[in-house]
Amino acid sequence: MTGDQLPGWRETATKNSIVEFAAAVTDRDSPDFVPEPDRIAVFDNDGTLWTEQPLYAQLAFAIDRAAELGHPTSLEKLHAGGMAALIELVTLTHAGITTDEFDALSRNWLASARHPRFARPYPQMVYQPMLELLSLLDRSGFSCWIFSGGGTDFMRSWTADVYGLPPHRVIGSVGETEFRSGAGGPELIKSAAIQVINDGPQKPSSIHRHIGQRPIVAAGNTDGDLAMLQWTAASPYRTLELVVHHTDAEREYAYDRDPILGSGTDQILAAASDRKWTVIDMAADWSVVHPPHA
Amino acid sequence: MTGDQLPGWRETATKNSIVEFAAAVTDRDSPDFVPEPDRIAVFDNDGTLWTEQPLYAQLAFAIDRAAELGHPTSLEKLHAGGMAALIELVTLTHAGITTDEFDALSRNWLASARHPRFARPYPQMVYQPMLELLSLLDRSGFSCWIFSGGGTDFMRSWTADVYGLPPHRVIGSVGETEFRSGAGGPELIKSAAIQVINDGPQKPSSIHRHIGQRPIVAAGNTDGDLAMLQWTAASPYRTLELVVHHTDAEREYAYDRDPILGSGTDQILAAASDRKWTVIDMAADWSVVHPPHA
Repeated sequence: MTGDQLPGWRETATKNSIVEFAAAVTDRDSPDFVPEPDRIAVFDNDGTLWTEQPLYAQLAFAIDRAAELGHPTSLEKLHAGGMAALIELVTLTHAGITTDEFDALSRNWLASARHPRFARPYPQMVYQPMLELLSLLDRSGFSCWIFSGGGTDFMRSWTADVYGLPPHRVIGSVGETEFRSGAGGPELIKSAAIQVINDGPQKPSSIHRHIGQRPIVAAGNTDGDLAMLQWTAASPYRTLELVVHHTDAEREYAYDRDPILGSGTDQILAAASDRKWTVIDMAADWSVVHPPHA
Repeated sequence: MTGDQLPGWRETATKNSIVEFAAAVTDRDSPDFVPEPDRIAVFDNDGTLWTEQPLYAQLAFAIDRAAELGHPTSLEKLHAGGMAALIELVTLTHAGITTDEFDALSRNWLASARHPRFARPYPQMVYQPMLELLSLLDRSGFSCWIFSGGGTDFMRSWTADVYGLPPHRVIGSVGETEFRSGAGGPELIKSAAIQVINDGPQKPSSIHRHIGQRPIVAAGNTDGDLAMLQWTAASPYRTLELVVHHTDAEREYAYDRDPILGSGTDQILAAASDRKWTVIDMAADWSVVHPPHA
């Protein structure tokens, strides 16, 4: 491969570590060579592949839908109500409908909703440099997967178009679904019972369950991703761990704490420092943050 | 493609329905054409891809391992003890060890254990005609997946070698796993808590969760597979539903009831008759059952 495969990345040590890693594990003559079926990369989503401030897109969707259903709420009320209020909101807005109906609702919302600060559709709030990284890995024979705390069904309504990932490689938190024979044939009803909250130590468990192989690349941005990066780092192969650090208040946001769940970054940044993981300094390492306007 | 792609199948209407279906959905000029990313096929495992009589291989493994652990049991005791005894056995033999340790135990057992009637290693108890079908579908651009009631980790210890399926496409029942930092680094401990029993109406839910797309081919052999076939049949594309009917007492077994869980075949055979699904009559349709001896 020739030419700059990561044009949205500045020529820093960060970019160099990524390009050098991809070259080494795909070079049959390198001691770091990894056979193609074992080239697995896992990514957190919110704050790692797209903007999660000032609130998760999925939460904005849920608040809008609650209002439509005649049960308006607000971010302030949710903060005051804690996890119980959040679960009530998810039950109201994500359950009791079929998977097909939910998919249509999510797609409709994404087509009209705009990010409050950047006034762009949420799918355009992805990070251009990370899109380039996904492409580089894909061209290098990797299978890229998402392991996010967000809802699987919500993500899958847009991730195929935006990231080019097939639905089976997009894994998040999930509720139970119930199979039933409806008027139009069999259908799956989304239930209020949450089965997996895909964060923290659950991420390696989900990776084992959904992939069944140890990744060699992992990227995250908060302590909720630490276990996933640790699990990856323990592979017998050479690995690459990436921590997206939000340092860019001008072009995006500067913060060290997840906006809703409150995960910090102390542990993951300490681990990165101890273990020489690659910290992506958004302000310094990226020449562009979001994709250019079409 | 030329030549007989299904040499283990006799020249019957069953074989013809499979060959004709595969040709139609891959022919760009056919009204039945299906784009490659939507060519998803799902298979039950026990009794559909390999022999499940006189007892599931995984149960034979568990009984052998219980004896090794100083807690011998028998099929008779398990039948008498019902589901409670079965769960106790699974807890004893499948929990409290790391996923890596379990994988090694399973591989060791498979290398030495023999089927009680055929005296062959269990991985050789697969159905040769179904191996040919998996290959035909793979060459036709399908992604083939397994959705079985068996344990995911047990299956994955041999399905890559035998069926050529990557681990992420082999989905069964699963217990929870717990992430912890062990002496040798991070590890996943298999817990006794069963999270999903992947049978009956759970199969479409698991398909939604693990694939996120509707299959167009489904194969099963008991009423525990009915929901999976119904879910597949409701695809907007042309679909193929296959029911393996065990009619061959001489070369395999003749039965209409699952050996352990007791699922029958009344409902799935009735649905097949109503909906013109393809019933595979093992004695009539297959010229060979298990692979030839090496």
